[in-house]
Amino acid sequence: MLKELQRCMKENGISAVIIPTSDPHDTEYVCEHFAARKAFSGFTGSAGTLVVLQDKAACWTDGRYYIQAQEQLKPLSITLMKDGLKETPTISQFLCDQLEAGDVVAYDGKVISLKQSKEYAQQFNQAGIHIRSDIDLVSQVWTNRPLLPKSQTFMLDTRYAGASVEKKIALVKEKMKENDADQYLVTKVDEVAWLFNLRAHDIPNFPVALAYARIGLNDVYLYIDQSRLDEQSKNLFQKMGITICAYEDIYEDVKGLNENVLVDGQTINQALVQSIPGTIIDAISPIITLKAIKSEIEIENTKQAHIKDGTALVRFMYWLKHTLGKETITECSAQDQLQAFRKEQENYIEDSFTTISAYGPHAAMMHYSATDESDVALEKKGLYLVDSGAHYYDGTTDITRTFVLGPLTPEQKKWFTLSLVGHIHLSQARWLYGAKGSQLDILARSPLWQQEMDYQCGTGHGVGHVLSVHEDNNGFRRFTNSREATLEAGMITTDEPGVYIENGFGIRHENELLAVNDTKNEYGQFMHFEPITFVPFDKEGLELSLMSDSDIQWLNDYHQQVFDKISPYLSDCEREWLADICQPIVR
Amino acid sequence: MLKELQRCMKENGISAVIIPTSDPHDTEYVCEHFAARKAFSGFTGSAGTLVVLQDKAACWTDGRYYIQAQEQLKPLSITLMKDGLKETPTISQFLCDQLEAGDVVAYDGKVISLKQSKEYAQQFNQAGIHIRSDIDLVSQVWTNRPLLPKSQTFMLDTRYAGASVEKKIALVKEKMKENDADQYLVTKVDEVAWLFNLRAHDIPNFPVALAYARIGLNDVYLYIDQSRLDEQSKNLFQKMGITICAYEDIYEDVKGLNENVLVDGQTINQALVQSIPGTIIDAISPIITLKAIKSEIEIENTKQAHIKDGTALVRFMYWLKHTLGKETITECSAQDQLQAFRKEQENYIEDSFTTISAYGPHAAMMHYSATDESDVALEKKGLYLVDSGAHYYDGTTDITRTFVLGPLTPEQKKWFTLSLVGHIHLSQARWLYGAKGSQLDILARSPLWQQEMDYQCGTGHGVGHVLSVHEDNNGFRRFTNSREATLEAGMITTDEPGVYIENGFGIRHENELLAVNDTKNEYGQFMHFEPITFVPFDKEGLELSLMSDSDIQWLNDYHQQVFDKISPYLSDCEREWLADICQPIVR
Repeated sequence: MLKELQRCMKENGISAVIIPTSDPHDTEYVCEHFAARKAFSGFTGSAGTLVVLQDKAACWTDGRYYIQAQEQLKPLSITLMKDGLKETPTISQFLCDQLEAGDVVAYDGKVISLKQSKEYAQQFNQAGIHIRSDIDLVSQVWTNRPLLPKSQTFMLDTRYAGASVEKKIALVKEKMKENDADQYLVTKVDEVAWLFNLRAHDIPNFPVALAYARIGLNDVYLYIDQSRLDEQSKNLFQKMGITICAYEDIYEDVKGLNENVLVDGQTINQALVQSIPGTIIDAISPIITLKAIKSEIEIENTKQAHIKDGTALVRFMYWLKHTLGKETITECSAQDQLQAFRKEQENYIEDSFTTISAYGPHAAMMHYSATDESDVALEKKGLYLVDSGAHYYDGTTDITRTFVLGPLTPEQKKWFTLSLVGHIHLSQARWLYGAKGSQLDILARSPLWQQEMDYQCGTGHGVGHVLSVHEDNNGFRRFTNSREATLEAGMITTDEPGVYIENGFGIRHENELLAVNDTKNEYGQFMHFEPITFVPFDKEGLELSLMSDSDIQWLNDYHQQVFDKISPYLSDCEREWLADICQPIVR
Repeated sequence: MLKELQRCMKENGISAVIIPTSDPHDTEYVCEHFAARKAFSGFTGSAGTLVVLQDKAACWTDGRYYIQAQEQLKPLSITLMKDGLKETPTISQFLCDQLEAGDVVAYDGKVISLKQSKEYAQQFNQAGIHIRSDIDLVSQVWTNRPLLPKSQTFMLDTRYAGASVEKKIALVKEKMKENDADQYLVTKVDEVAWLFNLRAHDIPNFPVALAYARIGLNDVYLYIDQSRLDEQSKNLFQKMGITICAYEDIYEDVKGLNENVLVDGQTINQALVQSIPGTIIDAISPIITLKAIKSEIEIENTKQAHIKDGTALVRFMYWLKHTLGKETITECSAQDQLQAFRKEQENYIEDSFTTISAYGPHAAMMHYSATDESDVALEKKGLYLVDSGAHYYDGTTDITRTFVLGPLTPEQKKWFTLSLVGHIHLSQARWLYGAKGSQLDILARSPLWQQEMDYQCGTGHGVGHVLSVHEDNNGFRRFTNSREATLEAGMITTDEPGVYIENGFGIRHENELLAVNDTKNEYGQFMHFEPITFVPFDKEGLELSLMSDSDIQWLNDYHQQVFDKISPYLSDCEREWLADICQPIVR
């Protein structure tokens, strides 16, 4: 298909085509209809941009995927460009170098954000390179392109969602007034889902519908094919006077917006925003923060979801430890077994992302996904990393445990322990309101940095509520950016430091942390984290001499909590075993 | 004088006058000629802005000075506005609230930065308030205003300065080209001093001359009265073809600049920049980073300066511990004694700031300065904080030690220990190149935050080389800002966490840390700090149960280094005593 695209480019006088991993909603995990980068490159990772020239192609992706992409890009001889390394040129640097003035670069304006399109325009204009965003060669060539998804929606009842649609729209209108906006285009699918308490199954592991919304101070429009709406939602929206329009109609409708229109330039697509005649107010979408700060109901429900998820994980761990060596267990079969345990839990919807079930060297690929080809049997040695999660009606989970399957090398024990120490230190943080995650990140990273080791990714990310398992504005990252939010009580963030040794092994320890208020005194509002994930860490991986008394105390307390919370839901055998592995460590 | 100003305001139809703590060079510590805020308010702190209305006045200052300002502003009934607290309005909020549309606010454009003037313009314009920056009521009223300083300059020889003027100008021109600049106005006095290896005594504790420079790609102008230049500098500049012009001439000269002119909008004054007809390139002044990254010669010299400074401090500590109880020692007499010990050291120029010699509750004022009125005798109990430093030809020092004079309360011991633990943790940091000080700040603050305590200031600041003891772009602060630099090898930053209990006591432990490169591996360039200050911490203040084994190990190693480096310069008695207090702690 790549060759076909290159032929088509020559016919149309196009020198390069940029194919991002995106859809008109700037969605992290795109549905098959929009998975053009994957279709044309063969690289299946969740992030990356393919750049096709007439006689070659290159694909940019980040540190999570270097190893995987290297393998998957080989068959089509696509060059891997390692994003995040100093020596790697940016896409525009690369194209300005490869092309000449007068050449034409094309991309589909519907899958490029306003911000990105402005950057391209500036960079390419300087080099005299032209841009065409109105020609969609990808669709022309991709003849068997999957259709747009049309799954039936379902309503996330207020008892799960935490607040009514009415209340949420009122909150949003307040934010619009603060921004002097008459209209607000909501184009991220999870923001639409949050606002309307609406869910669906358009994208695997991301229970939302492809939809847009337009909020006026006096009217509300939801762009989704009427036929897809469940009765409950349809009735509610009718009662509330919300107008339902066809999905694609928004592109016509915005041509009538002569007012102040609030859009988030980082996520709205270029094609949509360029049709608006009114004044554009480009600001961080207010719903991002509204949905990141979980309500009390959401928090209570999420804690419940984590008890269920923890139960599934503990049963999985029991099964793993007692079955390995007796029956063949592979990465894929273990993954299936874990999903089976989760499915037994009440209100389970689906997994919140594709489970990473990675044994031995596979775990060095941060986002490895076991396939029939890659699948291997687990053996009674080394480390086995499982990163998984689920959406329940109550909330969303994300947890990683690294299991010790047999003898470890001293090096494995060292990194297993130090990455857990980092996990613990971040979990124990107490801070004065005002800090952002990037200021706390070093707490998790320090024990590894002290040994000149690093994980080439963030320490953690926000978690949506029956939405995306990866949310951006709260997170623990090495560097701040202008969109990073102050940590607020009610935000949920993962804490997942790790160590990844290429061709060796991978370790990651992940809990979700809820930010809560502490004492408020003359110095300000103090805050701390509460872990809401309850599954034992595999103590067999620990080298106790690398832990302080305080680290061990934390782990003992945590394991006591795990036992208290999870044991009521286990069989007698499982409970007895859990009691045993949750015994406090005595030095 | 305040009343006189208010009378004059009425005559001229001025509703408010803003009097910042600044000079035409945005200098932190202003000379008496520019100390208008102090002269009109009575508040002697180093930072603050006085706002005078026709019938009242208010003065903004930050957390370091709340207590001191409260006292000093009382006589003139000036309201203290506590900068940094949420409830405190900004100056423009306050004025927009107090004044009406059509009212006039005045300030001297020569002592307001371009950035600040733009902010005022925007804020006041919205409220319909007019600005006059061309009327200098302060000078009219301030009849006995001190003259501009005219101290003789001296050259900081290349063997102290680290690089020749020629080399520095070449470096600067490279940076100009990177910024597409034809001209570069250097208006900060320490940047001028660095560039020309020129020093003077215009401002106490800040060995520089009031001067400007203009660097063209083909010519260099230095604006300083010819008569002030020492022979050595004059000859060098003549040989290099540097044109010397009168100090004030720059305001006329810039009217001819039709090219691309690089200025730093944060520090250049409004009056100067508004006279430039050319294109303004507003960027962080390149000299800021050039001078923050110390050369090898500067580093070696600075280490030497710290040995001498440490010797003075150790002798002071010996004297203090052996004299207290036998003779009367007061804050002022101790300060004099410390200066005497420093003066004995080779190449001493002057103190690098007014010593903070603060006993008991006085030490709760972070920037307390003992006066004849406030002076108290030290007693054999409680804590005595001394924050001091000096300029030597070799380099600049800044050190704080908190001495235990007798029995302490458990609370005092707790905070003494925990703030030292924070100091140690930051000192032990290892990080991957790319981090900024604001990301490391939490290492020092955590032990206090864990106890819901905070110091309401940064953890540390950059230190100039025989320039300002406070440099801004490297520092350890709670929050980042757009001017914060990445920590680079060769930067020197103070590490000075503390605890301040109003009406109680104050504790601060301060060393200077040199950032150095560590291993470079596949993850990047690792870095760590090397303390360059060598004076014992007073172990009598420690509560060992609050320290980890690693904390104690650090302290023992550090004290061993103190002994090794300082003992050769002491008398036998002093050496014996130092050996004793540097003994390792055994738990």
